[in-house]
Amino acid sequence: MTLREDGPPALEWAAQYLDRLRDFPVLAQVEPGEIRSRLPSAPPDLGEPFSAVLEDLDRMLLDGVTHWQSPRYFAYFASTSPEPAILAELLAATLNQVGILWRTSPVLQELEEVACDWLRQLLGLPEAFQGHIEDSASTGTLAALAAARGAAPGRRVLCTSEHAHSSVEKAARLLELEVRTVPVDDQYRMQAARLDLEDACAVVATAGTTSVAAVDPIPAVAEACAASGAWLHVDAAYAGAAAVCPELRDRFAGWERADSVVVNPHKWLATPMDCSVLWTRRTDAFREAFSLVPEYLRVAEEVVSLSELSVPLGRRFRALKLWAVLRCFGAEGLQAMIREHIRLAAAFEGWVDEEPGWEVCAPREFSLVSFRRSASDEANEALLERVNASGEVFLSHTRLRDRYVLRLAIGNARTTEEDVRLAWDVLRREAR
Amino acid sequence: MTLREDGPPALEWAAQYLDRLRDFPVLAQVEPGEIRSRLPSAPPDLGEPFSAVLEDLDRMLLDGVTHWQSPRYFAYFASTSPEPAILAELLAATLNQVGILWRTSPVLQELEEVACDWLRQLLGLPEAFQGHIEDSASTGTLAALAAARGAAPGRRVLCTSEHAHSSVEKAARLLELEVRTVPVDDQYRMQAARLDLEDACAVVATAGTTSVAAVDPIPAVAEACAASGAWLHVDAAYAGAAAVCPELRDRFAGWERADSVVVNPHKWLATPMDCSVLWTRRTDAFREAFSLVPEYLRVAEEVVSLSELSVPLGRRFRALKLWAVLRCFGAEGLQAMIREHIRLAAAFEGWVDEEPGWEVCAPREFSLVSFRRSASDEANEALLERVNASGEVFLSHTRLRDRYVLRLAIGNARTTEEDVRLAWDVLRREAR
Repeated sequence: MTLREDGPPALEWAAQYLDRLRDFPVLAQVEPGEIRSRLPSAPPDLGEPFSAVLEDLDRMLLDGVTHWQSPRYFAYFASTSPEPAILAELLAATLNQVGILWRTSPVLQELEEVACDWLRQLLGLPEAFQGHIEDSASTGTLAALAAARGAAPGRRVLCTSEHAHSSVEKAARLLELEVRTVPVDDQYRMQAARLDLEDACAVVATAGTTSVAAVDPIPAVAEACAASGAWLHVDAAYAGAAAVCPELRDRFAGWERADSVVVNPHKWLATPMDCSVLWTRRTDAFREAFSLVPEYLRVAEEVVSLSELSVPLGRRFRALKLWAVLRCFGAEGLQAMIREHIRLAAAFEGWVDEEPGWEVCAPREFSLVSFRRSASDEANEALLERVNASGEVFLSHTRLRDRYVLRLAIGNARTTEEDVRLAWDVLRREAR
Repeated sequence: MTLREDGPPALEWAAQYLDRLRDFPVLAQVEPGEIRSRLPSAPPDLGEPFSAVLEDLDRMLLDGVTHWQSPRYFAYFASTSPEPAILAELLAATLNQVGILWRTSPVLQELEEVACDWLRQLLGLPEAFQGHIEDSASTGTLAALAAARGAAPGRRVLCTSEHAHSSVEKAARLLELEVRTVPVDDQYRMQAARLDLEDACAVVATAGTTSVAAVDPIPAVAEACAASGAWLHVDAAYAGAAAVCPELRDRFAGWERADSVVVNPHKWLATPMDCSVLWTRRTDAFREAFSLVPEYLRVAEEVVSLSELSVPLGRRFRALKLWAVLRCFGAEGLQAMIREHIRLAAAFEGWVDEEPGWEVCAPREFSLVSFRRSASDEANEALLERVNASGEVFLSHTRLRDRYVLRLAIGNARTTEEDVRLAWDVLRREAR
């Protein structure tokens, strides 16, 4: 088994997969257990050639793929794995770096620091912010809140809006913090005036909520945090990417005052899963929460290892793909993508707005449109079911003021205006 | 930029890298900051071709790589990224699956379940164990201890041996559990008779400690846990792999009674970083600790998502590489590798034992030998420094009974007897 022999067919499979992206049903059209039932129940005794794996990928697995790479993926928040990132992952798997201490992979640690700093500059975040990569915003938020808890002994309240991501509550449960929910205004933004920071060690403000991409009033929240000493964590997992465009940066005003900020390049910055960047100006508080250097990891060099800042001891060479994306897209490439997605979302919003029997349910924010048919919740839910069952496009939903609402989120780098028009055509067709 | 154009050079780079594995200094011979200083301080405005990235990999980054893929990597515990796994990672990056709910990637969830079950069978673990993949044993142990804490309200003590991995203390800090350290016997195994389980919600037993790969007396620990109701978590991150060999399975007796077990295929099972498998018979306790399903993730199918069992909401398609490794090695391929590594470690132990002026410091366990020159700690530390500075091999150290001890851990699938002989030659040469 060699890369020279088995590599070209694998690469050709990948190239053909990208050629066929619009041919697959976007949402996998299988039943639970269907893929499992196709697989042997026990592993083989003898090794098989890689060609058998490649064959079974088509024969047994492909039907179970929900095609995140499809330009017609409009559910949740999209993700893209562009060619430079795919090849960077090939190289990262070849190098198989394990970042534990600096010395176990100097390149992993230093490229991670550099790539996060490049992204910091692209987003206009302050120089004092040091970044590292986590697998997901859930982990980054957990790490930030652990640091916050440790920095404010005795304060066990965490304030966040009722529209914050579920990972905030998940982290609070693990850290045994009491969640004090702050109500939102008519545009689903945290009502900063109603923040009660008594006993609060932290506030999580969201820039781009999951339901409607609302942006909490970060300047006012930052002001309140500064007055009370609470840690400010800004969850900009999806929308933070938009700050690569200078004309959109005022939407993030105030985040430069945060103690920590998380943005997921694996959402709207054309970087494949998994790549979530967390920046902080309070590295020491992270070390306080996580640093532990047992004898077998003691070495001569005095370098803070990235493993001292979070849960996992070992980390993968994720920086390589982020670096490859930043280089191969460049600032202009990323800006062009963000602007085009926002333009397309605005166009879609206009079509919905003009069509009788349909309504926009919340102000469009960034590349996310919340809308519904002017009909019952059941009708909307059934509509979404039919649309997704068609396989032509994939959308998801939320609830706003107890009404079932459809979401169209644009974020795949390969999406064109025709793909968005198709979504609108399918929606109207299935509504009839 | 297309895979057909840029893929072949990337693949050829990878193939040449694997050809050259014995040509590189194993431990990167750079100073802290050296790689960073070679990189531009700001990202480019305009996108560059992928060929520029590939060029800079050689020109700027390669010196900063510590070669985990080298057959002469004997530090910590080794890792291997074999060809089928490299190609599986290429395919996973191409598919860019994001496992959140089952429907966001049925194939990710079901293949993860199947691959973990195949591995469970290979290790002889009970059918009741359900497995999933984490990025690292640190995360798996954290998840297990969170489940344990939730399952025993009011009990906030965690018992583990003084030789347990640092991730146990890290998890305890995050979960605010008090660590009660149990002393070890003369072979560095937990003294089960000295376990005091009052107020203990969990015990972490280690099968293969980091320092000397000692195996705690799991049957006695399991007995004590059963009597007191404490959760038993078995950390078999490195050594658990050995259970693929039936003749070694009695070393793990008792782990079938555990509530959770963690084994890292990215250590001794020829699977690249990151792939740590956690099995549990108490899935419900994990859900209790982590499950949260907000409205925007509510769907028709009734399937427990893997995201309900741990910290991250989204997961990467890691199962593909594990599945590829299990298929392309087969049970026999993995057994042959484990047996050969143990044979080589035993040979090395014999060489040390017979050589005047050297001593074996702890019984060899599996493929790990702990040894030193019969000289001062300083002399041993300086020796290790010289050996690693030679770049010919890479070893690490620990402390046993307050003495500085060298560790030679065999675990790279490409390691041969000649590589181990070289290590011994370099050690003796540098000792002179």
